[in-house]
Amino acid sequence: MDTIRPIIWEDNTLKLLDQRILPNQYEYIDLTEIRAVADAITDMVVRGAPAIGITAAYGIVLAAQTHYRNSPNNWRESIQEDLQYLAASRPTAVNLFWAIDQMKQFMADINNEDPYPVLLKEAIRIHDEDIAANKTMGKFGASLIEQECAVLTHCNAGALATGGYGTALGVIRSGWDEGKIKHVYADETRPWLQGARLTAWEMVQEKIPVSLLVEGAASHIIRESQNGDKPIRWIIVGSDRIAANGDVANKIGTFGLAILAKYHGIKFMVAAPTTTIDMAVSHGKDIPIEERNTSEVLSLADYDFAAPGALARNPAFDVTPAELVDAIVTEKGIVLNPTTEKIKTMMGS
Amino acid sequence: MDTIRPIIWEDNTLKLLDQRILPNQYEYIDLTEIRAVADAITDMVVRGAPAIGITAAYGIVLAAQTHYRNSPNNWRESIQEDLQYLAASRPTAVNLFWAIDQMKQFMADINNEDPYPVLLKEAIRIHDEDIAANKTMGKFGASLIEQECAVLTHCNAGALATGGYGTALGVIRSGWDEGKIKHVYADETRPWLQGARLTAWEMVQEKIPVSLLVEGAASHIIRESQNGDKPIRWIIVGSDRIAANGDVANKIGTFGLAILAKYHGIKFMVAAPTTTIDMAVSHGKDIPIEERNTSEVLSLADYDFAAPGALARNPAFDVTPAELVDAIVTEKGIVLNPTTEKIKTMMGS
Repeated sequence: MDTIRPIIWEDNTLKLLDQRILPNQYEYIDLTEIRAVADAITDMVVRGAPAIGITAAYGIVLAAQTHYRNSPNNWRESIQEDLQYLAASRPTAVNLFWAIDQMKQFMADINNEDPYPVLLKEAIRIHDEDIAANKTMGKFGASLIEQECAVLTHCNAGALATGGYGTALGVIRSGWDEGKIKHVYADETRPWLQGARLTAWEMVQEKIPVSLLVEGAASHIIRESQNGDKPIRWIIVGSDRIAANGDVANKIGTFGLAILAKYHGIKFMVAAPTTTIDMAVSHGKDIPIEERNTSEVLSLADYDFAAPGALARNPAFDVTPAELVDAIVTEKGIVLNPTTEKIKTMMGS
Repeated sequence: MDTIRPIIWEDNTLKLLDQRILPNQYEYIDLTEIRAVADAITDMVVRGAPAIGITAAYGIVLAAQTHYRNSPNNWRESIQEDLQYLAASRPTAVNLFWAIDQMKQFMADINNEDPYPVLLKEAIRIHDEDIAANKTMGKFGASLIEQECAVLTHCNAGALATGGYGTALGVIRSGWDEGKIKHVYADETRPWLQGARLTAWEMVQEKIPVSLLVEGAASHIIRESQNGDKPIRWIIVGSDRIAANGDVANKIGTFGLAILAKYHGIKFMVAAPTTTIDMAVSHGKDIPIEERNTSEVLSLADYDFAAPGALARNPAFDVTPAELVDAIVTEKGIVLNPTTEKIKTMMGS
């Protein structure tokens, strides 16, 4: 269990597992320059809110090294443009901005010394703490599952989306270990197929039985499973940003699943570290939603299947209102039926 | 408007527009033998409940011709095995069984004469009446739309799924002509991408603006559109079989859309000819749901994107409970909030 690492720091180099070509190819890309790191985030070499945050932290280590070498006296000024470039790589996941802020605070505390060792230590700490947080929230999340059952997940909120172990898939790993989760259903998750490519791959590595389905099949399969011996009792997803009131931005399709959960009388769980909670955003409607290139919808690989002349929409995320969320699980604890008050209490604890 | 014909009878030959390769190639396949016709239905050269029914009728014409030639005295017996083969081509669409039953009734009335002209006349009548029914239900359906708006559709219930003009897309064609429908959103409809390939193609032919979306984006886009000048007010779909109580079997993903419609306070319309209503099935749970090969979910074209070792589910249809349906529109009229009683009344009229 738990050996998948999408982000490795080794020999002064950031190595990112190229998630665009998984599962057919397993290949790390070496990065030594912050702009290349930012582009890798935009291009989805690495994806998943916590993984983006960790990647950004290492990217800043690389940038600080370069700028300190070039101008030891004003690297703090010269690095700013690169930090802005990094911040513009993807708009929705708050962990990106959280990581940049964290690293900026450490930069401010550095005197006239080489920033590299201090910042690297901090990036590694962010990385390690993310994995530890996932393991903690895995246990918390699994504790909510009372009976043997199947679960449904969307996109990939696994080891690949984090420092390791995963958020939603962390809960699923824990629930499987404890004998509570007996089967995993995974939405294929168009247009990027993170479910079919990444979640299924992680589950196969762990020998956890996983069945893929197209998003449209979720309602039918949830209903049908209720009559079997492994009913789907929970939908478990990650998040890219949680507003202060508990509204949850996550991969496009999550909002619809939460509505289905309510209709079918099953539960909806969001697993995310507290770094995903953005107390500065009071409601989900204020979370910026990235709209990606329509070519991702109109074609797949080299197959241009859509009718020429058709338009397309390609929002990458949606926002699930807090009232559809049964539980938000973080490393600090569980918030049932989230409200601003409950989240504030947990964040302060 | 209205020039797309998926099924053509010409020179004693059934010509089917090959919907597997649209929109990249536009090609008719010539068929002169009933088993090849049945295989074309199974392989989805032709799809859509009414189109399957019409195709089956022509297939029986071809079979009767062959069997009468081979054994003029007992062609009615020798044809039975072929009819069974045809009936096994796809299980969910009731129009297939309806067409076989219709043709059997005409076969019973034929004396010791060549069955070909009588049966061909009947098949052509079924075909023509389907197109006429679609035009009628197009007007009925459009009459339900009270304000200018956008609509969302799923799969392809268009000219390609019928004799011509379409059921759901017939309503959309009429609503566009009347200036009520201003924009069409089309689910791409995994795994077969009928929305991206077929519905978008039909709309582009008609110069009706169409935006594709992945199924997962429907909830986000419905909500977002409510604040714009072209809000999505209706979801309009076809059907493969409607139970006597108004439960609706249709392409996988329809059930989830109906739940979304209720959540967002928009309306859900099913357009289908009365040949799609199966009074012999009292509830939707008794409609057989075809489960197709998992390779359709695990790969696309030649791209095996899914993680090796992953299982899959591939139900081709789902059943939407009548209580989620605001209107069933047939060529005989409109049934609002369908019940067994209301449907029985309409069918008897």
